[in-house]
Amino acid sequence: MDIHSLEKIALSVRSLTIDAIQKANSGHPGLPMGAAELAAYLYGVEMTYDPADPSWLNRDRFVLSAGHGSMLLYSILHMAGFPVSLDDIKSFRQIGSKCAGHPEYGVTPGVETTTGPLGQGIANAVGMAIAERMLAAHFNTPDAEIIDNYTYTLVGDGCLMEGVASEACSLAGHLGLGKLIAYYDSNSISIDGSTSIAFTEDVSSRFEAYGWQVLHSDMYDFEGLARLTAMAKAEKHKPSLIVLKSIIGKGSPGKQGTSGVHGAPLGEEEAAKTKAALGIPQDVPFYVAPEAYEYFANHRKELAARKAEWQKTYEAWGKAHPELSEELSAWFFNRPMAEPDLPSFAQGEKIATRNASGKCITAIAKAWPNFVGGSADLTSPNVTQFPPAPDGSSQVFSKTNPKGRYIHFGVREHGMAAIANGMALYGGLRPFVATFLVFADYLRPALRLAALMKLPVIYVLTHDSIYIGEDGPTHQPVETLASLRAIPNVSVVRPADAEETAVAWRMAMEKTDGPTVLVLTRQNLPVFTKDDPEWPYTMALGAYVAKNTAVPPDATILATGSEVQLAWKACALVAEKRPELNIRIVSVTDMRAFANAPAPVKEAILAPGAAVFAVEAGVAQGWERFAQPDRIFSIERFGESGPGDKVAEHLGFTAEKFAQLLLAHL
Amino acid sequence: MDIHSLEKIALSVRSLTIDAIQKANSGHPGLPMGAAELAAYLYGVEMTYDPADPSWLNRDRFVLSAGHGSMLLYSILHMAGFPVSLDDIKSFRQIGSKCAGHPEYGVTPGVETTTGPLGQGIANAVGMAIAERMLAAHFNTPDAEIIDNYTYTLVGDGCLMEGVASEACSLAGHLGLGKLIAYYDSNSISIDGSTSIAFTEDVSSRFEAYGWQVLHSDMYDFEGLARLTAMAKAEKHKPSLIVLKSIIGKGSPGKQGTSGVHGAPLGEEEAAKTKAALGIPQDVPFYVAPEAYEYFANHRKELAARKAEWQKTYEAWGKAHPELSEELSAWFFNRPMAEPDLPSFAQGEKIATRNASGKCITAIAKAWPNFVGGSADLTSPNVTQFPPAPDGSSQVFSKTNPKGRYIHFGVREHGMAAIANGMALYGGLRPFVATFLVFADYLRPALRLAALMKLPVIYVLTHDSIYIGEDGPTHQPVETLASLRAIPNVSVVRPADAEETAVAWRMAMEKTDGPTVLVLTRQNLPVFTKDDPEWPYTMALGAYVAKNTAVPPDATILATGSEVQLAWKACALVAEKRPELNIRIVSVTDMRAFANAPAPVKEAILAPGAAVFAVEAGVAQGWERFAQPDRIFSIERFGESGPGDKVAEHLGFTAEKFAQLLLAHL
Repeated sequence: MDIHSLEKIALSVRSLTIDAIQKANSGHPGLPMGAAELAAYLYGVEMTYDPADPSWLNRDRFVLSAGHGSMLLYSILHMAGFPVSLDDIKSFRQIGSKCAGHPEYGVTPGVETTTGPLGQGIANAVGMAIAERMLAAHFNTPDAEIIDNYTYTLVGDGCLMEGVASEACSLAGHLGLGKLIAYYDSNSISIDGSTSIAFTEDVSSRFEAYGWQVLHSDMYDFEGLARLTAMAKAEKHKPSLIVLKSIIGKGSPGKQGTSGVHGAPLGEEEAAKTKAALGIPQDVPFYVAPEAYEYFANHRKELAARKAEWQKTYEAWGKAHPELSEELSAWFFNRPMAEPDLPSFAQGEKIATRNASGKCITAIAKAWPNFVGGSADLTSPNVTQFPPAPDGSSQVFSKTNPKGRYIHFGVREHGMAAIANGMALYGGLRPFVATFLVFADYLRPALRLAALMKLPVIYVLTHDSIYIGEDGPTHQPVETLASLRAIPNVSVVRPADAEETAVAWRMAMEKTDGPTVLVLTRQNLPVFTKDDPEWPYTMALGAYVAKNTAVPPDATILATGSEVQLAWKACALVAEKRPELNIRIVSVTDMRAFANAPAPVKEAILAPGAAVFAVEAGVAQGWERFAQPDRIFSIERFGESGPGDKVAEHLGFTAEKFAQLLLAHL
Repeated sequence: MDIHSLEKIALSVRSLTIDAIQKANSGHPGLPMGAAELAAYLYGVEMTYDPADPSWLNRDRFVLSAGHGSMLLYSILHMAGFPVSLDDIKSFRQIGSKCAGHPEYGVTPGVETTTGPLGQGIANAVGMAIAERMLAAHFNTPDAEIIDNYTYTLVGDGCLMEGVASEACSLAGHLGLGKLIAYYDSNSISIDGSTSIAFTEDVSSRFEAYGWQVLHSDMYDFEGLARLTAMAKAEKHKPSLIVLKSIIGKGSPGKQGTSGVHGAPLGEEEAAKTKAALGIPQDVPFYVAPEAYEYFANHRKELAARKAEWQKTYEAWGKAHPELSEELSAWFFNRPMAEPDLPSFAQGEKIATRNASGKCITAIAKAWPNFVGGSADLTSPNVTQFPPAPDGSSQVFSKTNPKGRYIHFGVREHGMAAIANGMALYGGLRPFVATFLVFADYLRPALRLAALMKLPVIYVLTHDSIYIGEDGPTHQPVETLASLRAIPNVSVVRPADAEETAVAWRMAMEKTDGPTVLVLTRQNLPVFTKDDPEWPYTMALGAYVAKNTAVPPDATILATGSEVQLAWKACALVAEKRPELNIRIVSVTDMRAFANAPAPVKEAILAPGAAVFAVEAGVAQGWERFAQPDRIFSIERFGESGPGDKVAEHLGFTAEKFAQLLLAHL
């Protein structure tokens, strides 16, 4: 190990960090200055990667879970030869820069995931390590390990205080993810001051309790980093946490070791003092030690050799196993191995959309061997169980069954969703997760990041309204649909019957640029005849005409999910009193898609001149876009415990009341 | 200990559970049948309470964190003599019953908090134990401990898998909450099956790592329960986790020990078999053993004696310390000790609303000694620090400073909010919590429960839009306002300047029937002159006229927070081109309040005949209620990293573009 050069690399991380943050007058110098040695070690010695091909299949992954320390990543990516230039670094935190305030997936080559919201990154890393094990189990052959990479992550005190990290790490220990290595930048400082004011637990014992190997060293001891990383790799059956004592903002004579250096520029004066103390030339802004560039120039040859060897193995493997090779390509290019034999349903058949979804899952699991996922301990109520594998073996992914692809996430919604993000980021997999709709709240921060990164994670959210009944208001969503629809890039789809559910699943599998949320009923709904013969295609517009009228309608009702039935009943009641009225029912499967549909399409579906009404078993918020507030039939309060129909009655959410509302306006 | 009677009580818990769930044909028999002995022990031996006065100040608290086991609670409350009748139990899970599907605060006397969403209850219990310590430190005197109760909670595997429980329990250990005692119903079964499929961590070691005392026994050993509870009480400086090995659904010959008994009725046949096995008469539905009633009839005398003794102490204390006694009453009846001297601001002064809020917090902290809370490690950015105590001592609540009332929650947003719920539930305190607005997602499940329980917890959420700039889209809320406004019972208040901030704080402190979310800027805003002279009062309507016109306006702009300034600038630009136009600006501080204001008020504020526009630095969702979609100036995508103004420009969210939009429609 060329420690001298590694020190120069670490020095250069500090130099770039100081100047980039000073120039932007914004940023977090504490972590990059405190953990520069780890970056130097990982990218300079330990990790295998190709800076010219940042998405190379078998690269080692590095996740900066403490995303505020983004300059650590940009500095090292720059020196290592990724397409991150000094100019990019000079535009740190400016619009359009490759060097955003926090690391952003898709913006910077070499950034594996978007981090910043604490705890998410380490959970993503758990997902990547799961994905690696799944792909390795599926594609590696006795003659070739074409999938064989490690997942490294750097976490700080903040990440380890977050519940999402606890959930994910507990599961990682359970699954024995031996190729996951987390470095804990233990600097004992958080924004409010010393961690002694809020965080005095014994982190090492906690992780041992999770089933992790825990090792201890010092951030500034390269030999120690190498020795402990080797020990981590030697432990094949447990993830490892390497606790590194460190000094936040190391190198700043006046600020190191204090919370003052966490999230603010050093200031001109302290920057100069720091450079003097570290031996960074004062007159060369954005200084990088020549030895750093030199070292990486040489190191890239070594990396290229490693990759070339893999390439050889890979090509030989491809020739020896053409079907596997083709399948690998299908997985990564989002193609099924066969057209999924999605279920069909008889008209009038009564079936809950969660059960229809269950049949779709069975069909998709057969056609898409890379369709993976599971539930947060609600497998049976979510109806997400997988059929047995073709050879009859269990499909449950576990320590001993890495070929499994159904994950029992435990009661860990947030960890589950963040892990699914990591699986999607790894590539090759189509992950889904499942829980009750109301518990979308528990996983929302991870869903937001999926939306921001445009990851095609699928959320199976059942028990979608007050109609679940007896479990009461804690389990009855009323605001959840509106709150999910507010998030950009998320497709929130609420099918009205089993047939729509199958189409929704098809669309979800075809979507590659963002998450899909499938909102499903617990209660049975009849399969109904759709008046728009093109409905399986027009549904892509977010809405289609479910029940039409022979003449131009007097009114159009926008309804979703189970409320299409309610609308139907209300229309029948209206017809008893005012048979001359013609009312169209539109099934709005995806409100945002419909809102964004071309104006003529929208007009045609709404029917020109028709009075527009909307109905949904939840808050009106969002529907005002289409219907006047007094024409929206909604639920503006929390629910009640009782049988579903009784709850609806108690809340005044019945076909009779809706019919009254229609009649009052027509 | 009269073990024979306790066994009969436990038997009766099983009997009531079986029949109530069978009758409702819905419910969770597994936990109540598995943990009946603990309920018998706690209510029959350990706890001090007054069933005739369920809100007695100094009662011991019991939180059923595993809320699905609600029949455990209803059964024991009934037998103990709380106003929960057999008829109430017979109407389990029916509309209007005191026995809702999950325990609901405010619905059932003796239910201390609403549980069901897992992990929340134990975090509430942590909050109750904090509250007890705070009140004890403030009110107890050398001669009298008028506040001296324990907080007990029952958690299952599910609760302990949830991140929110991890966060809260880590903090509980840090704070050394010796009067918190958690019983872990360790039955090794979750909905998906054995916990071995997802949850194999060493829970005991984890809790020891948090700084808890961990003890082990068997659920069905009353002597063990007594011995271990005594040990838990003897340990004054650590919370205790008592791990009780148990059998889910104990007593059901065919189903006990399986996930099948978790959440479904036993079925007629198995119910009969269970009764036979347990010796419950088949022909007496809702059987309660006479010994159970008898035992509690006697036990109530003992409890009454305990309370009478406390009452004596309390009265003597009240006479000896009349000012303390008066203060105690003020705390519980939500009265300040003085009118808060809320800050005033000079017109034109530029100040971020987070900073104005900081000044309010200082004033409120002085006037309301029961105003307590803190931040999730963002004290300085949230501007929530407390002034030093009058005697100059630290206000930080800690193991060694129980008189403190500022809590460093650590990076634990979810735990923080759930703990605050517990503090509010304990009574006497006015808790607030703080983080960035975008991280409201992390605490949302607890906020939802605060809304459901109508707890007046105050959320200080700063950094409220893309104007925070450089930290980028992970830190820039765009959908968060809409998603919070969707939740019933929550007041979401976004003040437009420092003066509005002070009024918002006053209103938040006056509100007692639900949470208030204060949405505050990081960037400076000028204090502006309001044209409605009554604005500090009309603001209670959710909106008031900030800038009026001499003649009836041609247009009215609805704006919130920093966008009131944007509207002002846009009006100036419009005036340059079309000086004849008269545009009113309305500051909408609380959209829901405004939506619910009386129609004439709304009409007057919107101005009849005026074209209505809306502007907010977030998604349009919700504003369609007031303005047509093409008249809403909003941000429908995630933000960017860059200086705030540049981000706004990049997104096209500028006064110029808004002026263009106005001109295009006027």
